[in-house]
Amino acid sequence: MFVVSDKPPSSALAVRDIAQKEARLYGVGIGPGASDLITLRARAVLKRTPVLAYPCPPGSESLARRIAAPHRRRNFFWRRRVVELPIAMTLDARRFPDPAAYASAARAIESHVRAGRSVAYLCEGDATLYGSFLYLLPHLRDVPVEIVPGVSAPMSGAALLQTPLAQGNQCFAVLPASASPQVLEKALQACDNVVFVKVGKSFRKICTLLQKNDRMRNARYVAYATFPQQYCAPLSALAADASFRAPYFSMIFAP
Amino acid sequence: MFVVSDKPPSSALAVRDIAQKEARLYGVGIGPGASDLITLRARAVLKRTPVLAYPCPPGSESLARRIAAPHRRRNFFWRRRVVELPIAMTLDARRFPDPAAYASAARAIESHVRAGRSVAYLCEGDATLYGSFLYLLPHLRDVPVEIVPGVSAPMSGAALLQTPLAQGNQCFAVLPASASPQVLEKALQACDNVVFVKVGKSFRKICTLLQKNDRMRNARYVAYATFPQQYCAPLSALAADASFRAPYFSMIFAP
Repeated sequence: MFVVSDKPPSSALAVRDIAQKEARLYGVGIGPGASDLITLRARAVLKRTPVLAYPCPPGSESLARRIAAPHRRRNFFWRRRVVELPIAMTLDARRFPDPAAYASAARAIESHVRAGRSVAYLCEGDATLYGSFLYLLPHLRDVPVEIVPGVSAPMSGAALLQTPLAQGNQCFAVLPASASPQVLEKALQACDNVVFVKVGKSFRKICTLLQKNDRMRNARYVAYATFPQQYCAPLSALAADASFRAPYFSMIFAP
Repeated sequence: MFVVSDKPPSSALAVRDIAQKEARLYGVGIGPGASDLITLRARAVLKRTPVLAYPCPPGSESLARRIAAPHRRRNFFWRRRVVELPIAMTLDARRFPDPAAYASAARAIESHVRAGRSVAYLCEGDATLYGSFLYLLPHLRDVPVEIVPGVSAPMSGAALLQTPLAQGNQCFAVLPASASPQVLEKALQACDNVVFVKVGKSFRKICTLLQKNDRMRNARYVAYATFPQQYCAPLSALAADASFRAPYFSMIFAP
């Protein structure tokens, strides 16, 4: 299903070699939000690639583009060619992405790469964790692909809370809050520490699940980690407030 | 158990503000291995903090120090004060860390911070995922702590394999290969995608477990991801070789 090579790629990418490399598509993890949580490699790729691609909700601003924006003035990369992938930031759209939109973006990316122009596809957090990049890959034909790993949301939330994702022999899981309660409960019972991501409308469902499994007491809520409006609080306090609404980019940590 | 504040810390740390901040202990995720997979914020902290601390196996080289070394010439940080935490990189030592070693490192760090000198504690990958930093925190008294999240090993392995950690409504788990087969099996059955970390001597145990649960066919092995000697291969090929030995820093991805 994916464009995968089983032979190991070349060793660690030297920043100054990017411009000399064969044209390719980079899946670039740009980090969880704060502009200085991007890696040196990701920034080097953004600087050197002539084409930028990113997901963009129709009629709205692209979050990935916004996270990358502080690197803009120095790089002038906003003046370059752009491929926008129209994709709604809702769970349904992510579960059932529009194949036509991905196919159309894939054709545009292919034509750039075949003309010798590398493309950097911006991915919030890390490209391999719930990213639109993963849906794009199967649509691509004969395009060299390289993924630049990034700092993802669970790590940024744990850093804010100063809580371990896992230590010693603990098992740790990342669970999409939109999955069925049965699936979530099984994973919750099997793992020591759990992070529910993309909480949004599933907030009450997760609270009920944690209450039922006696995992509410130390659970904590985090929204917009590393953004200026970041916020964290004990989950029990928020669960008691019937008017509380969680945004899409929020997480619940249940140790 | 941990030094945790429930009020949200200040907004995204501006790189040039670090020098002006109140002295503190930074837990710095320095990434999975390649020197350019460090974040801008982590590099800025390494540059500005007068004291470095890191885990170091007795009589051997510190891997964290080696990962950070390429940033050395420009920063001259190797000339600064250093706190070494002697800790063996074995599972037993991590499960049952020597409290005396941590307490002694904690006293040294406290004295630096009280004298107004910030300390950067180097953590391979991310500080909150199986790091020695987590064991250090409970030993500290009245020291401001800030964690800088980093790119962790599962993300770097998934980038190398170009495989999703999770997409859509999938559940994803990170499991320490040294845990009991019963614990691992329960988590394996509850999650769509699983990454076994710190494989080492548990290699055969994991192969048996995956075979039993019919998860062997697409499983893949990754060692030293992002290091020059990085290597990946289908797990079934390695499992058939009775002489194969996995190093401590290896992972198995089971979709």
